[in-house]
Amino acid sequence: MTRRVEILRRATEVFSRQGVAHTSIEDIAKAVGIKREGVYYYFSSREDILLEIILPQSRGLLFNFQNIVDGKTGVRERLHAAIRNHLESYNPGYLEMAVALREDHGLKKKNARKEEDKRLAELRRVWKDYTGLWIRLIEEGQAAGEFNPDLKPKMVVFGILGMCNWLSRWYDPEGDVAIEEIVETYFTMIARGITLPGGGGEAPGFKE
Amino acid sequence: MTRRVEILRRATEVFSRQGVAHTSIEDIAKAVGIKREGVYYYFSSREDILLEIILPQSRGLLFNFQNIVDGKTGVRERLHAAIRNHLESYNPGYLEMAVALREDHGLKKKNARKEEDKRLAELRRVWKDYTGLWIRLIEEGQAAGEFNPDLKPKMVVFGILGMCNWLSRWYDPEGDVAIEEIVETYFTMIARGITLPGGGGEAPGFKE
Repeated sequence: MTRRVEILRRATEVFSRQGVAHTSIEDIAKAVGIKREGVYYYFSSREDILLEIILPQSRGLLFNFQNIVDGKTGVRERLHAAIRNHLESYNPGYLEMAVALREDHGLKKKNARKEEDKRLAELRRVWKDYTGLWIRLIEEGQAAGEFNPDLKPKMVVFGILGMCNWLSRWYDPEGDVAIEEIVETYFTMIARGITLPGGGGEAPGFKE
Repeated sequence: MTRRVEILRRATEVFSRQGVAHTSIEDIAKAVGIKREGVYYYFSSREDILLEIILPQSRGLLFNFQNIVDGKTGVRERLHAAIRNHLESYNPGYLEMAVALREDHGLKKKNARKEEDKRLAELRRVWKDYTGLWIRLIEEGQAAGEFNPDLKPKMVVFGILGMCNWLSRWYDPEGDVAIEEIVETYFTMIARGITLPGGGGEAPGFKE
């Protein structure tokens, strides 16, 4: 493992343990067992490190998802695979970091370096493409008569991604819930909902 | 409107416009048109302001939800009302602020003031009670034979709250999506799922 990769690994651990907002370059250097200068030799800032962690992971997420959406199986199988891909790409802290990075750049930073800007632009494009592909999958299911056509695809997608991304707030990789179980639960919820057919007490607006 | 309330209102606006992480006491003072000292006369810190905004709202959310769960209508109607209550309590920036506050306190702060600690403890209790009540609602639906008993209530609740809370990342109160439409979409997704009955291509693990 090169020093560069080691710094990225330790940074990932520290970010997920104590939160991005509370992590300084100093903390990362300590975790690696080197001086701050040793970190700065490879990375210009905390944001630089975040980008180097998140961008490759985001590209991988999109690449796999593209293959799923392009697959020949039915839309339900592809929905299932898509949820699995999203949740399995999830590693401790990935989404937390992605969210932090997005927050940091909610505001235009005048002092952003050019190289970083390019990567940020790519990251935004990856996320945009990812959401766009999700919308395509839902639209395809609607066109095929398999998904409820009354729902706006974009809102369905925000709902699914929200459900999945919220793991960054509660999921504990050391805990007793396996990702596989979450995949099955969320797929069932999204595909079929939680109510059983034939139950009474339809809510207002609950169309048959 | 008292000066104290005015500060809280302006702070809410600034927090949601530029993000909590990027908002200083100075920014809040500017928005009110007073000096920093004027803010410090009423509030000891940014966190103090956040708590004064979020705690009353959280209490209200829980109070209304308690009434819904205790209601006499069927579990589906109560699920519908619960989603509405959650999303309507949503005001610009509320969840963003709640999340920021939780992040700030992921780490124990040694210098937290006693008064603030009490309010934070209450806030945590409110959120815990809120989640607990949601779990009760799902369990009740399962016991009544109306909700799918194969799903773990806690994971169902995390899924629902994730879907709803994710609005803090994308919802634009000035945009063209009405909260009412999100309520109906998410209720339909959660209650019935997005697939239509009778479609082919069941995914693996998709139990009938």
